[in-house]
This record gives sequence, C-alpha cells and structure tokens, in this order.
Amino acid sequence: MSLILALDFGGTKLAAALVNIGSRNWLRYQRHLSPGNADASTDLEIMRSLIYSLLEDTKPSAIGVSFGGPVDASTGTVRLSHHVPGWENIPLKNLLEEEFGVSVGVDNDANVAALGEHRFGAGQGYDSLFYITVSTGVGGGWILNGQPWRGVGGMAGEIGHVVVDPTGPICLCGKRGCVERLASGPYMAQNAREVLENQPHKVGKVLRNLVADDLTLLTGQLVSEAATAGDDVAKEVLYKAAWALGVGIGNVANLINPQRFVLGGGVTKAGEDFWRVVRRVARETALPEVDFEVVPAALGDDAPLWGAVAMAA
Amino acid sequence: MSLILALDFGGTKLAAALVNIGSRNWLRYQRHLSPGNADASTDLEIMRSLIYSLLEDTKPSAIGVSFGGPVDASTGTVRLSHHVPGWENIPLKNLLEEEFGVSVGVDNDANVAALGEHRFGAGQGYDSLFYITVSTGVGGGWILNGQPWRGVGGMAGEIGHVVVDPTGPICLCGKRGCVERLASGPYMAQNAREVLENQPHKVGKVLRNLVADDLTLLTGQLVSEAATAGDDVAKEVLYKAAWALGVGIGNVANLINPQRFVLGGGVTKAGEDFWRVVRRVARETALPEVDFEVVPAALGDDAPLWGAVAMAA
Repeated sequence: MSLILALDFGGTKLAAALVNIGSRNWLRYQRHLSPGNADASTDLEIMRSLIYSLLEDTKPSAIGVSFGGPVDASTGTVRLSHHVPGWENIPLKNLLEEEFGVSVGVDNDANVAALGEHRFGAGQGYDSLFYITVSTGVGGGWILNGQPWRGVGGMAGEIGHVVVDPTGPICLCGKRGCVERLASGPYMAQNAREVLENQPHKVGKVLRNLVADDLTLLTGQLVSEAATAGDDVAKEVLYKAAWALGVGIGNVANLINPQRFVLGGGVTKAGEDFWRVVRRVARETALPEVDFEVVPAALGDDAPLWGAVAMAA
Repeated sequence: MSLILALDFGGTKLAAALVNIGSRNWLRYQRHLSPGNADASTDLEIMRSLIYSLLEDTKPSAIGVSFGGPVDASTGTVRLSHHVPGWENIPLKNLLEEEFGVSVGVDNDANVAALGEHRFGAGQGYDSLFYITVSTGVGGGWILNGQPWRGVGGMAGEIGHVVVDPTGPICLCGKRGCVERLASGPYMAQNAREVLENQPHKVGKVLRNLVADDLTLLTGQLVSEAATAGDDVAKEVLYKAAWALGVGIGNVANLINPQRFVLGGGVTKAGEDFWRVVRRVARETALPEVDFEVVPAALGDDAPLWGAVAMAA
C-alpha cells in the first residue's frame, strides 16, 4: 500500500495527515495549535512529533507540504512567514527529504489549496480556476490548463493586494483600498470598530452587545453574525467586503477568463447576502461576454492538506 | 521555398504580407484603408485583392490572420467587429481554407500581437508576458509558458475594462473608471474637451490653439503633443491615463506575476513623462516582492502581421 504524507504549516496551526494513494479519507490525521511564541524551530519540532505519531512504523512514498507564506516552489525553500519568525530562507524540502528519505514538494497554501479544490473539491473537472481564500488575509492560487500557475517569481495570485478603491483606507502594504484591506476578517473588524467609535451608542447596537461594549473584541466573524442579525454598521462593513471581492473577481475574469472562482476561508461563511453581493458585483464588473461561476470551496480547512496530497501523488 | 501569408483585418485598415519562413523581412507587403462605409463583404473583397496581388503565381504553405475583434480561435470564427458591420459569426478560417487550400489560423489582434512581440519583438526570450495595446481602445494579449493564453471563452486580456477608479467617469461598457475610459486616445480627447468646455479661455491655451478653438477636433495624439509642450490640461489628462495604466499593470502583476509587460499603440508614443508615470504607478501598485519590467513594443503596427506569421508557422 502506497502512503502519502500531507503537511500543513498554517500561521496558527499545524496539521499532518496520512492517506493511501487514491483514497479520499484520511488514514490518520493530527493537528496542533502553533504556540503564541512559536518560531520556525518550535513549529518544526511540533510537526516532527505529529509526523512520527502518524507514521508509526510505516514510511510514506512521498510528502506534500502546504506552507502559509511565500515559498520558492522550484526549490522548496520557504522565503518567510508573516506570522511566525525564523522562517527566512528555510530549505524545508531539503530538510524533510534528508530526514525521511522520500521526495517532498512544498508550495504556499493558496497554490496548494487551489490544487486541492481542483483535484478533490469544487474545482473538479475545471481546467482553469482561481481559488481565493478570504480569512485573516486574502490570497489566491491559480490552476491554468490543469496545472498550478505560480508566476515567474512564485508571486501570482495576490488578489488581496489588487487595488479596488484608490480612495479607500490604507492597507498594511501601503496602498489604499486593496481587496484585503476591505474584505479580510481582521480588517472588517477594524472597519466596524472605527465606525462605532465615531457614532452614538444607539448605532451598531447588535455589534456592541456581542462584545459587551469592548470594541477591541470585535472580529470578522462577529461582524458577519451581527450583519445576519440586522445590525446596520455590520451590514455596511460586510457589504463593502463583498463589493471589494466582487470587483476583484470581475477584474480577474476580464483579465484571465477562467471557468470558475472557488472561494474559501472564514469570511465566505458570512451568509447568503454576502454571496449575493459578491456574485452581483463580479457580474457587473466583468464584460457581458465573459462567463464564469463563483462557488464556495468544498474542502474547507483541509484544502491545503488535500492539495499537498495531490502535489505529492 | 516555403511562404507564409499574414493577414491583418484592423478596424480601419487591411494589411497583407508575404514572408519566407525564417525570414524577418517581408517579401511583399500591401495595405489598404478600410472605406468609411465598409462591411464584412467589402473588407473581404479588398483583402482578397490584396492577397492575389501579393501571391502572384505562388501559393503559401499556411495563412495566419489577425482580426480586430472577438474571435473564437478554436474554430477560427469571427464573433463580431466593433467597427465594421456584418462580421457576426463569419467562419473566416473556413472561408480562407476553402479558397486557398492551406491551413489557416485566426485569432484576435491583441492575442496575435502578443505572439508577434513574443517571437520577434520586445518579448523575445520571455516565456510569460502581457502585451497591452493603448490606442482607439485598450486591449491585451497573454503569453504564458510560451503559449498564448486566451481564457476559457477566448476573452482573456481585457485590461481595458478593468476598473481602476470606481468613482471615475462612465465607460461605454457601463462601468466607471475602466482603464480604457481613462487611457484610450478618444477618451483622452473627450476628457480634455470636457475640461476645456468648463474652464476659462486662458486654461489649456496650447490645446485650444492646436485645434483653432474647435474642440471637436481634439485627439489623443494632440493631447500628448500639448502635454509635451507644457499645456496643463493636457498634462493632467495624460497623467490620469498613465496612472490608470499603471494601476492596471500593477494589479495584473500581483495577480499573474509575468516577466514583462509590452506596451504598444499610439498612446504609448506620448513621451518620457507618460512612461515614467506608468512605471512608477505600476511599481507602487505591485507588491515589493513582485518583479516585472514595462517596455515598449518593438514591432509597431506590424505586430499583428508578425504574430500571424508565428501563428501560421
């Protein structure tokens, strides 16, 4: 029996899973939160212990790795992590190949998740798709002609930093009105907080109640919940997030004309209103002749792991 | 000796050229303006006469065709022309194959020009590039992995209708602030005219003099000339055009991460200031890790013909 080992180095959690080639069910699965003071060494230590507990006495025939940050996929070298220090220029592929003696593929999480959705999820049967994750950040991964497209420097897919509103709020990247600045969970929370701080107490009542008036506790998920409950401030913030994603998707459709957009990540669980706005604005932004579908991801948090399986297999 | 016949159905002119395979010089070349009342039949008649006068008693081994409008490249069927009536669903590949008995390839002008620049022009040696023509309209064509990328429905490359300023002026496509709405020649002329109509006579003196106060005579080229001569209105309009292109290019760089952007078309001859703004804004819009170059096209008006040669060969 031929086994694939799939690893997911996320920003906040580590996961490892073992699967028989061809199977769609994990043989064994382990996950562990990354500690608050994690660095590359502790992440690698934790992952190593997950791996050995998964493998027991078996040996995988190949290893696929999803990494939450920029990766040089041609060499399997991590460039850095935006969340965990110490990952600068770590030759992750080489480290794992030396330790486990099998071939290893490493790529960044958005590219790997795109591959996962393409092979096993909402992108099955679609040779060209753009996967977008809308979560702590906003990122994307391409499948073109059935293959990952990473760009010349491995930087393709950065829809999070496509500008959709040049007069919008300033993003961490220095520009105004990036998709991520309007649509990521933490930025949605910030946008709601800024409105609430400048409005009388009767505005945004639902949101304020959800955090017992402590606006530092706001999250993107709470904004979604409050919007569903009818909170005006939350609805406006969530609308702007959906609008930004829709403009970004419509622009991408005009530029690349893929068959499908597959959207995953926590923010995309915000409900029907959110999806309706994303789809309407994307449709309005694309030329009438440009056809595409916008669908939810099917694999959820396991998309990177399944993509790692596809990459290794 | 093996001959390639290259045809260019532009919106306003028709061109045909004959070349020996491998040569970089036209053996024979003919062009003809499309008459003001042209339709598909008259265009085809004129092209036929150009072809027979070029071919004399020889026969080409293949024919490549650039068409100025949407084409289904897989079947070689023209969908329509935005400039010339009667082109709806014309099976141009079939017509030419029946008449000349050789294999024919047909694609739209931006895709074909991209291929021309890739094989023979400013894109030689670059496996991933985006060619942008900034002229009467703004369009683009992709080369990815050394091959044309047309998108699922043949609509890829429509950078002209990427939104860069959602509060900007309304484009013919119905949206606000498309790249084409700000950067195409005719729209630059319109933007200048609207400013001049609402400003005292001392504003925009150079521009007004160039058209002897008849603002209906303004063109994109005159806006460029006046900007070079220091006219404030013209400089502002041209700046906005360059800014729009720069934002579009930077966004595309973030999304696809190609090696090169190759810019052709009349507007790109607007001078050093124009290019400086395009490059600066593109650089500011792209993430710091995303590398790319923005260079002028090398083949000028012949890019579609050379691309047609590459397609046929």
